[in-house]
Amino acid sequence: MDNRTLNIGLIGVGRIGKVHAEHLAYRIPRARLAAVSDVNLEAAAALGAKLGVGRVEADHRALLADPALDAVVICSPTDLHAPMIEESAAAGKHIFCEKPVARTLGEIDRSLDAVARAGVKLQIGFNRRFDANFARVRRAISSGEIGEPHLLHIVSRDPGPPPIEYVRVSGGMFLDMTIHDFDMARFLIGEEVEEVFAAGAVRVDPAIGAAGDLDTALVTLKFAGGALGVIDNSRRAVYGYDQRVEVLGSAGGAAVANNHPNTAVISDAASVHRDLPLNFFMDRYLDSFLTEMAAFVDAVLDGAPIPVTGEDGRAAVALGIAARRSHDENRPVRLDEIKA
Amino acid sequence: MDNRTLNIGLIGVGRIGKVHAEHLAYRIPRARLAAVSDVNLEAAAALGAKLGVGRVEADHRALLADPALDAVVICSPTDLHAPMIEESAAAGKHIFCEKPVARTLGEIDRSLDAVARAGVKLQIGFNRRFDANFARVRRAISSGEIGEPHLLHIVSRDPGPPPIEYVRVSGGMFLDMTIHDFDMARFLIGEEVEEVFAAGAVRVDPAIGAAGDLDTALVTLKFAGGALGVIDNSRRAVYGYDQRVEVLGSAGGAAVANNHPNTAVISDAASVHRDLPLNFFMDRYLDSFLTEMAAFVDAVLDGAPIPVTGEDGRAAVALGIAARRSHDENRPVRLDEIKA
Amino acid sequence: MDNRTLNIGLIGVGRIGKVHAEHLAYRIPRARLAAVSDVNLEAAAALGAKLGVGRVEADHRALLADPALDAVVICSPTDLHAPMIEESAAAGKHIFCEKPVARTLGEIDRSLDAVARAGVKLQIGFNRRFDANFARVRRAISSGEIGEPHLLHIVSRDPGPPPIEYVRVSGGMFLDMTIHDFDMARFLIGEEVEEVFAAGAVRVDPAIGAAGDLDTALVTLKFAGGALGVIDNSRRAVYGYDQRVEVLGSAGGAAVANNHPNTAVISDAASVHRDLPLNFFMDRYLDSFLTEMAAFVDAVLDGAPIPVTGEDGRAAVALGIAARRSHDENRPVRLDEIKA
Amino acid sequence: MDNRTLNIGLIGVGRIGKVHAEHLAYRIPRARLAAVSDVNLEAAAALGAKLGVGRVEADHRALLADPALDAVVICSPTDLHAPMIEESAAAGKHIFCEKPVARTLGEIDRSLDAVARAGVKLQIGFNRRFDANFARVRRAISSGEIGEPHLLHIVSRDPGPPPIEYVRVSGGMFLDMTIHDFDMARFLIGEEVEEVFAAGAVRVDPAIGAAGDLDTALVTLKFAGGALGVIDNSRRAVYGYDQRVEVLGSAGGAAVANNHPNTAVISDAASVHRDLPLNFFMDRYLDSFLTEMAAFVDAVLDGAPIPVTGEDGRAAVALGIAARRSHDENRPVRLDEIKA
Repeated sequence: MDNRTLNIGLIGVGRIGKVHAEHLAYRIPRARLAAVSDVNLEAAAALGAKLGVGRVEADHRALLADPALDAVVICSPTDLHAPMIEESAAAGKHIFCEKPVARTLGEIDRSLDAVARAGVKLQIGFNRRFDANFARVRRAISSGEIGEPHLLHIVSRDPGPPPIEYVRVSGGMFLDMTIHDFDMARFLIGEEVEEVFAAGAVRVDPAIGAAGDLDTALVTLKFAGGALGVIDNSRRAVYGYDQRVEVLGSAGGAAVANNHPNTAVISDAASVHRDLPLNFFMDRYLDSFLTEMAAFVDAVLDGAPIPVTGEDGRAAVALGIAARRSHDENRPVRLDEIKA
Repeated sequence: MDNRTLNIGLIGVGRIGKVHAEHLAYRIPRARLAAVSDVNLEAAAALGAKLGVGRVEADHRALLADPALDAVVICSPTDLHAPMIEESAAAGKHIFCEKPVARTLGEIDRSLDAVARAGVKLQIGFNRRFDANFARVRRAISSGEIGEPHLLHIVSRDPGPPPIEYVRVSGGMFLDMTIHDFDMARFLIGEEVEEVFAAGAVRVDPAIGAAGDLDTALVTLKFAGGALGVIDNSRRAVYGYDQRVEVLGSAGGAAVANNHPNTAVISDAASVHRDLPLNFFMDRYLDSFLTEMAAFVDAVLDGAPIPVTGEDGRAAVALGIAARRSHDENRPVRLDEIKA
Repeated sequence: MDNRTLNIGLIGVGRIGKVHAEHLAYRIPRARLAAVSDVNLEAAAALGAKLGVGRVEADHRALLADPALDAVVICSPTDLHAPMIEESAAAGKHIFCEKPVARTLGEIDRSLDAVARAGVKLQIGFNRRFDANFARVRRAISSGEIGEPHLLHIVSRDPGPPPIEYVRVSGGMFLDMTIHDFDMARFLIGEEVEEVFAAGAVRVDPAIGAAGDLDTALVTLKFAGGALGVIDNSRRAVYGYDQRVEVLGSAGGAAVANNHPNTAVISDAASVHRDLPLNFFMDRYLDSFLTEMAAFVDAVLDGAPIPVTGEDGRAAVALGIAARRSHDENRPVRLDEIKA
Repeated sequence: MDNRTLNIGLIGVGRIGKVHAEHLAYRIPRARLAAVSDVNLEAAAALGAKLGVGRVEADHRALLADPALDAVVICSPTDLHAPMIEESAAAGKHIFCEKPVARTLGEIDRSLDAVARAGVKLQIGFNRRFDANFARVRRAISSGEIGEPHLLHIVSRDPGPPPIEYVRVSGGMFLDMTIHDFDMARFLIGEEVEEVFAAGAVRVDPAIGAAGDLDTALVTLKFAGGALGVIDNSRRAVYGYDQRVEVLGSAGGAAVANNHPNTAVISDAASVHRDLPLNFFMDRYLDSFLTEMAAFVDAVLDGAPIPVTGEDGRAAVALGIAARRSHDENRPVRLDEIKA
């Protein structure tokens, strides 16, 4: 591996895999998408042809065995993340893996051990950290612009719930949806969360409750440094994808609004109005997917620290588990109660 | 008493008393400010002279004994509210009383009993209900415009903490400051709160902690109908008085921004900026003080229901007590645990 | 006249007269409303009774003859302004007069001469200068905050046209409506306008055109110092009263938005919207009427300069006349072409 | 030419040429960038290598002679646009050409004649029509959402003036900068402009005046259907690239705000502020360059009407010429005065 180009194999050509593949092929000059694999070989071949990728495989192990590849991007289903991380590390490949790493801390710890032993780099796909809005809020905190953080509020609401079949296998709202917000909370404040209290409800669809899950929640966070936070989740905001954060600090506050498809404001005889916010996570966060991948490529090539580590991936899962326990037992749960 | 003019005596001519007096004298056509009293007779006399009030007394009992007065407005220190309500009720006067009614449920219950026995009307001074912003959000809920409420967020932050001497006798942040937000939560959602969980911190000034109080808090609320809410309090937002609410409902969301002294936006080489929000509660809420008093006068003269009842006053105090217990014991507290 | 209280007689108790009377009676401590007159004596008496005014007259000359009065506030119909200024000046009264002073420069010059000879003070009721939004923009310019002015844009649109009977006697849109904006332009930039070019149209109602007037216009202004400006007028903005200005300066820009009845933003499945701006000039500009009158009282009592002079009143009328000529002749018109 | 892929040769690999080339190579699936040319062969070769383009030439005529190419994209200097359009048309290529077509109507008419004779398609690069903000305003008008247009306001201000050497050869502000706004005016209102009045000034830099040009202008437009408009230009808005439009219609208004790099609002002890708008036209309008080119490819392949025609290119130049004449002669100029 020279330090000018990272040769990458991508595993799994589903929705997010396609996005990463296109970015790697065309929009990240220091990356070369050298191979793709998918158990659906036809899908892999189609993508490979479209993007001019030299190698297409059904079995990801063919990629891991290829000495020409420096790194892999894992976009397989969640339950394959941890074993693939282990295999990739064993093969000496640097790894970008979609979130969540796994749904149990045991699996995560095993894969992180493998990464550590192999001495490879691992980045977890918490793309929202790379969103221009949230990055600006982080900068407001890390630069001291708004002083010490006192209060954090994260609003994270989907435009509508996923299919009930998905809900049943999702691992629950806290691990499926709130996990992004747990990572965002740690990212923004720059501290660990020591205790959570989760209040949950079924307000959107009784079928979600019947499946043992929640669709509405408020999760209170106590940070190690003394700040407090709350995450506000709903599976359905009829006006669209609602993704905002707000921080109060000792020297000021920072808040971000939603992104809209345009800035036009229409005033008529009834109201002053504008079009709804971007409704689909791929529209809302497209830039951040490009930025995170470019950051991964740069970090590996330049030997720089990885911006979202495996430990970050683990911490978010631990918070999800703690939140569910807090809700089930209706009490605050300390993170040091959560063991692998 | 005819139904065209309400003859009113005002007790206590401190800051808020002066505001009510001026409104009654000049800006509420159906009210007549007929008498004022204050233990500081000089202050009462000065105000009376300025506003052309016929009767000025040091002792409020002189007002209660005056058969020409239909109603009293109680603006005395908090610990006198409950006994004065009892005396005024016994004298057959309708009553407008500043919040909080008292700091213990026992005192409140005694005064509400007196009001009930006397058959007079009692309105509590939760003026924020009459603010145009919050009233619009309430209307969005009560009219069905945004459907069933799912999530409520109240931001209520002071520009700076009160003097530490005041903190020591204030009854604590939950009864002194959050009490407004407890009332706002009940008002907006139109339901009782069944359980609270309060996370508190000392982030603004260690002296507040040394005095046994908090200056930063997140209070989670569970409403009887299943909605969830959170109140976000700080004793110091350096950018000014921060008073906002936001509700997510099944059919939409409603949110209010702060009030600013003007709408001007200045763009220079450094940023796009505007002047800070109104910094002082009297500027921010002045209109609501006028509106609440006009509503009281109308309700008494027209025999209409009082918009903010004694029971509302009691419920907010019960929530404050529950929140403090929740914080002290670090557990959710049900409201039915809170007894007089 | 002592320097603590200004004794005022108010002439004309129509809509704007009532507003000024109430402010003088109750809300301007240094003013005393000592007398009111109206040819409709019944209306004058009703207002006098309501506000506790000692003297009520049908004939304004009774007020002018009253040595107890220091000043008069002239709220009569426009065609009486100039003669009443002359009479009041001759009687030695300080004068606050509603705009416009008159519709011809000849009348204005005669009345300003009378004022000058008598040595009394005269303030013209260009209340918008005292609006918090516009005052903030003026401050951005006068303080140097945005540098030297380059471009000015004034949007001034009514929610709907006046009755066609009014249009016929109004003096035309430039003298009836744009006159406020001409004053605003001079006030904001702090310079005289040397040339105007008026493009007008009939877009709202053909009846307005049939009456010889316009309902839509763009008036380009060239200021003495080199800045350019444009006034954008319409007799009907269906979304309400639209009153905004924007200035580009060498060091920045300043812009004001409309005032709304509340800050609530509602998001539903169709749009993100808020209530329409304040629709009625009395709601939009109420505070400015109070502030301008308090400024008049202070200026007279303290011997300070009058904030809106008779010359300001004259200049706005000259601009209106120039704009009409520009439109009629479809050419730029210099202000030095406009003679009395 | 099949109707699935358009084989394109790109002429001129300067700043805008590179943007178009990258879009054609990677982001427009129905286009294939088959060749590039530039008199600077080295630059052409570097771009060709980066994008994997098969053919690289110094002389654009080699592209025109290549039967495998269906269309050309002309990104050469302005004075070469018209002759290259003629040559390309003669070679039977469809043409996308950057604006302006030329600086004289004679040249434009000759090139449009050539296009007509050859029966090829020609699109002019007025990319702003494809910007999401302006497109939304156009939709508000064309759909009838805001009724008949009455007043248009276009704000178009650069963050800073170009180098004075550029100013000298630019053709003047009206042809170099305002030309975009003339096209925007015609696009938004959907009508021709019949008369202009241009007020110009030198406010930003005396050197611009010394070069015979302006840096500040207000151009009044009278549309064929009776609407009025004004374009507000400055060569320097210190807060960044200011690109806004606003339309008042009979049934409502539509206005767009600037685009900012993020939505974060920071509140500190001094102000409530946000980061400056996007400062560089390439950041501000990047999406529109992609969208216009995709629209060209679609129109050619599908035999659909071209969205921005050669006549549109001509009309904008005619308006620029009329505006300059209006300014020089200080009078309104009718478009029918402007002859080739």
